[in-house]
Amino acid sequence: MQFKNNSLTQMFDLKLPLIQAGMVWVSGGKLAAASAKSGILGIIGAGSMKLDILKEQILKAQKLSGESHSHRLALNVPLLYPGSKEQIDLALSLGIKIFFTSAGSPKLYTTYLKDKGAKVVHVTSTPELALKCEGAGVDAVVIEGFEAGGHNGKDELTTLVLLPQVVDAVKIPVIAAGGFYDGRGILAALSLGAQGVQMGTRFVATKESRAHPNFKEAIINAGPTSTMLMMKKIVPVRLFKNTFYEEIKKLEDDCADSSKLLLKLGKGRAERGMHLGDLIEGEIEIGQIAGAVKNIPTVSDLVAQIRSEMLAKLAELNLFFTP
Amino acid sequence: MQFKNNSLTQMFDLKLPLIQAGMVWVSGGKLAAASAKSGILGIIGAGSMKLDILKEQILKAQKLSGESHSHRLALNVPLLYPGSKEQIDLALSLGIKIFFTSAGSPKLYTTYLKDKGAKVVHVTSTPELALKCEGAGVDAVVIEGFEAGGHNGKDELTTLVLLPQVVDAVKIPVIAAGGFYDGRGILAALSLGAQGVQMGTRFVATKESRAHPNFKEAIINAGPTSTMLMMKKIVPVRLFKNTFYEEIKKLEDDCADSSKLLLKLGKGRAERGMHLGDLIEGEIEIGQIAGAVKNIPTVSDLVAQIRSEMLAKLAELNLFFTP
Repeated sequence: MQFKNNSLTQMFDLKLPLIQAGMVWVSGGKLAAASAKSGILGIIGAGSMKLDILKEQILKAQKLSGESHSHRLALNVPLLYPGSKEQIDLALSLGIKIFFTSAGSPKLYTTYLKDKGAKVVHVTSTPELALKCEGAGVDAVVIEGFEAGGHNGKDELTTLVLLPQVVDAVKIPVIAAGGFYDGRGILAALSLGAQGVQMGTRFVATKESRAHPNFKEAIINAGPTSTMLMMKKIVPVRLFKNTFYEEIKKLEDDCADSSKLLLKLGKGRAERGMHLGDLIEGEIEIGQIAGAVKNIPTVSDLVAQIRSEMLAKLAELNLFFTP
Repeated sequence: MQFKNNSLTQMFDLKLPLIQAGMVWVSGGKLAAASAKSGILGIIGAGSMKLDILKEQILKAQKLSGESHSHRLALNVPLLYPGSKEQIDLALSLGIKIFFTSAGSPKLYTTYLKDKGAKVVHVTSTPELALKCEGAGVDAVVIEGFEAGGHNGKDELTTLVLLPQVVDAVKIPVIAAGGFYDGRGILAALSLGAQGVQMGTRFVATKESRAHPNFKEAIINAGPTSTMLMMKKIVPVRLFKNTFYEEIKKLEDDCADSSKLLLKLGKGRAERGMHLGDLIEGEIEIGQIAGAVKNIPTVSDLVAQIRSEMLAKLAELNLFFTP
């Protein structure tokens, strides 16, 4: 049994309706290339990269994926950082044609990017914001639920609640993110009307990810209750429960204001945790599904496994029904 | 196309893998009977009922559903109330054979009920607790995610994250609850390995529910962001955003301790909101999916609609694949 094209797989020439998320300190050129070569969309996460590093990672991704796969490379650009326009222009100049924008207004660069012939996907957390994305002219939206790792919406809508409401609200393809890690999940998302799924945490724990080995180990050792959404007074972020988390929790339990939280957070916490591997005092951004991830495969093996899980579950599902 | 039996529909003789939740102030005999007659499990919510009311509601449900359907009636018993044993004994004496227990240990009455020939299902919010339920000998578990209405687990696991992990952990059937309202959702739950789905909020807004008309109207007028999980210092509960919610929010923003929250809550808030229809100062317990519920159908029409949505989506899903 094979997956046929839908509007999303057609748009990006995907062999499976699956997208590897662009994550800060995790999604470098090697990971994105391995994804593109495996027939899914491979996203480089620009969030943590200075321009020279970004250039290096894009060139690496293009070289590793080769001419027949590099059209499946994309760039994730969080718009809250000051250098996002320069990142976009650099990527355009290197031939990147797919942009996932987040943490800012979809109006900011969508027209600019579309005029250059690029595809634009914006990340959103409510049906209302999804409609604004559609109005701004994006080609698709990613909906990201409460269970997702890293930064999160303030309304705490879960993927299961958010997804069908966005599907019913917009005409463009909807990509579901937050809480997915296997083939069953893709089938569930398709059932709810998504055209594809974006996975983050699952791809942190792959051989090709740029995450520090300690970070990968933390995921495969995590339990079902190892994460919590914190720092709601600044920007909500889902954290792995370590010493840094405990310190933030204590501050929040004591009703600390945002200035005290920002002081504790300081600078470079995410790099310290996710890139340098300090599991104690570093900030480890991770999805709630971490507890279900139990191995560190190659991307190629992972994608093959997800595909076979999806097909097996569909066959099983059909057994429950008679014509 | 028809749904065939799985282990859950076989256990309870269901025509669709769907369960109408037993909700305080909402699930009376009329609602449960309408569900049983429509081929799904109809649960009476004992939580808010004194013994004389409970007896009246059970007898009403049995009379309305008739001999050919009354085997699909069940009782939900929250074990935190002092009178739960008396409720169980009364229901047993009236011929109820299916019990959904919650808010307490599955060890408390499972053996007692099984010895009387009853089926027992316990509600849980983590894989670890699901394993304890299985160990206590229950026939099935309900997993209830963060998006569910009313009382909620402290670990904030969403249905999408919780469900497949529980399915992989236990051998007994798993019923998914929290975030479901239509046929697409059932198909998604089956994809993730559930044997059935329990819906609450969707059944509040039916003609046969005991909820006050104002409460039903509040649901169909709700938006996607109309609920929030509150009172985490006592027992987490998902509330509709009204004046009472705003008052609780202000207390929590000011770091009020549990005694202050309990004082504000007072007695009879839930009855005031959900049964007497005070939408301003009453406690309205409701799921995050409220924003997607847009009508107040009969249970029979609702079940027919859910069935056809589920079958249509499965047919559509199959179109994405080639043999």
